[in-house]
Amino acid sequence: QSSVTLFGIADATVQVGRGSVDNNVGLGSGGLSTSRIGFRGVEDLGGGLKAGFWLEAGYTLNNGNGQNSNALAFTRRSTVSLMGDSWGEIRLGRDFTAPYNNLYDAFGDNGVGAILETQDLLGSTSYGLQTRTSNAVSYFTPKTLGGFFGQVQYYRNGRDASPATNRDQYGNGYGVRVGYENGPVSVGVAYGETDFSATVGALTTKVDTKNLNIGGSYDFGVAKLLVSVGQDKGEALGESAKTRLYTVGTTVPVGAGLIRASWTRASEKDSDARADKFALGYVHNLSKRTALYTTFAYLKNKDGSNLALNGSVTGAGDSSKGLDIGLRHAF
Amino acid sequence: QSSVTLFGIADATVQVGRGSVDNNVGLGSGGLSTSRIGFRGVEDLGGGLKAGFWLEAGYTLNNGNGQNSNALAFTRRSTVSLMGDSWGEIRLGRDFTAPYNNLYDAFGDNGVGAILETQDLLGSTSYGLQTRTSNAVSYFTPKTLGGFFGQVQYYRNGRDASPATNRDQYGNGYGVRVGYENGPVSVGVAYGETDFSATVGALTTKVDTKNLNIGGSYDFGVAKLLVSVGQDKGEALGESAKTRLYTVGTTVPVGAGLIRASWTRASEKDSDARADKFALGYVHNLSKRTALYTTFAYLKNKDGSNLALNGSVTGAGDSSKGLDIGLRHAF
Amino acid sequence: QSSVTLFGIADATVQVGRGSVDNNVGLGSGGLSTSRIGFRGVEDLGGGLKAGFWLEAGYTLNNGNGQNSNALAFTRRSTVSLMGDSWGEIRLGRDFTAPYNNLYDAFGDNGVGAILETQDLLGSTSYGLQTRTSNAVSYFTPKTLGGFFGQVQYYRNGRDASPATNRDQYGNGYGVRVGYENGPVSVGVAYGETDFSATVGALTTKVDTKNLNIGGSYDFGVAKLLVSVGQDKGEALGESAKTRLYTVGTTVPVGAGLIRASWTRASEKDSDARADKFALGYVHNLSKRTALYTTFAYLKNKDGSNLALNGSVTGAGDSSKGLDIGLRHAF
Repeated sequence: QSSVTLFGIADATVQVGRGSVDNNVGLGSGGLSTSRIGFRGVEDLGGGLKAGFWLEAGYTLNNGNGQNSNALAFTRRSTVSLMGDSWGEIRLGRDFTAPYNNLYDAFGDNGVGAILETQDLLGSTSYGLQTRTSNAVSYFTPKTLGGFFGQVQYYRNGRDASPATNRDQYGNGYGVRVGYENGPVSVGVAYGETDFSATVGALTTKVDTKNLNIGGSYDFGVAKLLVSVGQDKGEALGESAKTRLYTVGTTVPVGAGLIRASWTRASEKDSDARADKFALGYVHNLSKRTALYTTFAYLKNKDGSNLALNGSVTGAGDSSKGLDIGLRHAF
Repeated sequence: QSSVTLFGIADATVQVGRGSVDNNVGLGSGGLSTSRIGFRGVEDLGGGLKAGFWLEAGYTLNNGNGQNSNALAFTRRSTVSLMGDSWGEIRLGRDFTAPYNNLYDAFGDNGVGAILETQDLLGSTSYGLQTRTSNAVSYFTPKTLGGFFGQVQYYRNGRDASPATNRDQYGNGYGVRVGYENGPVSVGVAYGETDFSATVGALTTKVDTKNLNIGGSYDFGVAKLLVSVGQDKGEALGESAKTRLYTVGTTVPVGAGLIRASWTRASEKDSDARADKFALGYVHNLSKRTALYTTFAYLKNKDGSNLALNGSVTGAGDSSKGLDIGLRHAF
Repeated sequence: QSSVTLFGIADATVQVGRGSVDNNVGLGSGGLSTSRIGFRGVEDLGGGLKAGFWLEAGYTLNNGNGQNSNALAFTRRSTVSLMGDSWGEIRLGRDFTAPYNNLYDAFGDNGVGAILETQDLLGSTSYGLQTRTSNAVSYFTPKTLGGFFGQVQYYRNGRDASPATNRDQYGNGYGVRVGYENGPVSVGVAYGETDFSATVGALTTKVDTKNLNIGGSYDFGVAKLLVSVGQDKGEALGESAKTRLYTVGTTVPVGAGLIRASWTRASEKDSDARADKFALGYVHNLSKRTALYTTFAYLKNKDGSNLALNGSVTGAGDSSKGLDIGLRHAF
């Protein structure tokens, strides 16, 4: 039907991981871009008004599984929108959070070179950067502000409110992002808060998480520079934890290809736990839609941190290495 | 591919519910039409013969989840058909029941103004109107009977017969519907029976449910009137329960919009438990495919009935109020 | 979008089964071809190079359920490929195993006439012919070898390596197939080995399975003859089991229809347990895409074997009968 665009990505990668405790090798999915399939469309309502929808399901190409009980669901994005050329967009449903929209990184969060996400550090999964939220009402500014842009979102889970142990699906909160994008420059700052119930020890308690993000990129032509600084904070039972995330990266176009490199660090504030990752990769574009790619990453843990790459296992304070070799096809 | 039509609905609604015990507010899905995605097609076999298929999955737009383990499945409809211009249609698979096809209501069963479904009353979920059935062989009369139409369906679960605790998926039974539709008038009567296994107290026992439905609508031009009367009966362990459902509604076109109003009552026969709902709504069509809508409903319980609207909680005999404000986009 | 082909099959069948212990009748799915929906595409990269993807989900038409937690997942096939006219195809992801690709049978593995699969015999599900594997890297020879063809595949589960109780999803192994196909003749031989963890009694242990397959077909014009011999072997805890599979079948085109007949036998090596199935069927093509079909099968067990057809239950050494009457529509 003319009103629907079917789109997606099929991305498979051979993953090699080495750590001080165990190594790993196998086929994985999404080393360059997350494998997905989606349906989207825009209807012109006249007078500068448009309606649109976007339904997107993730899957793992290596085994065909989806994200809910290993089956397909529109948990990457499920939104319906009303858009005005002059006033912007109202978007309802499940989508990225504002802080996640503000990530500036050479590898994004895919593959072995992915930005370090706070929640991995020291096994604390409860307060790191939140990728998505359900039940959101979002407003996006129009593209008519001379390069300035903004987003405000408010999310509130109604019917399934308690128990709400899944921040992503059942949390309540809000997010805001403002930025400027013009020619070679793009900068942004974003902040979000989410309240949800979680099990801390033997208790189910309310957890409050706060994610702050500042980042930007500048395209020098021969290379693009990307820089991000983030802070993630979690509070529960009167205690709190805080982690900082730094990343500096670059992408360098070479003929039909793209060299990518980055350094990313996650460090916990109340301890000396810290992880540094150095990643170097090359994407060879066979066409606009199809690319061969490889990425190598080296990760150095400090103190209690024991992050490991590509399914390997490494001891606290030890290092880990990982390699991706993959094929990404977009449709 | 030319033989497949991809279609669907993305419908999000802000839901507000008020009850004597607890209030609720949040984003929901399907306040005007159930969010869904489907694939269907018809092949002309020549000589007035056609083949067709219809696969339709429901999802909740606010979080992207589907209906089986929160993931997508064709549990709204999954059928393959053989159709003859002169003799009608043989349809195999999962589909609406005949009594459900016979609902006449201004709000259908979507949103806060939805028809009261018997199964909600007094917490008895086992014998109310059955929306769908799997494993059905159905026959539909052709459109050549001068406005008269009929449907017969027989459903029998084979392989997964025991234990068959899910009426919808594993029940055995049949349904029949006859009616007349011509110009402004539409009337119909339907009856269905389903046997299935259910847990009643500590026992897994056979349950027999019977649903009867009479309804009709008349379009006066300035307004359409819709009336339904239904009776639902359940028998298990030598005991039985019976509930009656009444609904009177109207839809009034106003410019690009539609005003909707209805009264609906569910009353249990063997007690004084009863619920009355009054609903008033407005649908503003931005195009044939896209609409903004709002619905307000007031529900009055009597005796043991404690139905509540939009996720609120209300005490037995207390009232509840609910409001939907939403956007529906069809594709 | 022009780059994607949406395809599928909707196949419903009335299934009747008779056995010495219990009979069965009900609506089923896939009596002629497995019900499925898929998305695939090929991109021409120039210079004889192509990229392609194939995502295919199975479902049961009678109830709309999918294969993972009753919901849809691309577990029939999930692959991304790079193809060269002169050198063949590299395919990554989840796909058929090489031995499964080498099946020659009049009924394939669908419906009541399906080839006997070793894993059914004596309840041993662990070592029979493996239909699919995840995490595979496969190489297929090009179509330029004068009718000769070959396939090599290697599969290795990385991230989810332990515990890996599902051979299909988490096994590690390899497969190889070589054959010749030219005009009326097609012959092939295939071999595969898979290691995985399984629960044998109270132990979780490593299981090693080996599947060997030799088969071929010859099209005489008035009829096609198909012959297969297979051997399946399983080893765990120092013990092993072995089963042989034989099948001889024929298909005879008659006007718009096709008569199908086969004999298939599965016999366990270390006992006298054995099953013989005789199947006779007719497919009536209403078009290239749509067919009515019926299949009758008679199964004779010997000794400990108690295989039964179409959901019936039969005693060890007893016989079973089954009938399919169905409609298959491809889109």
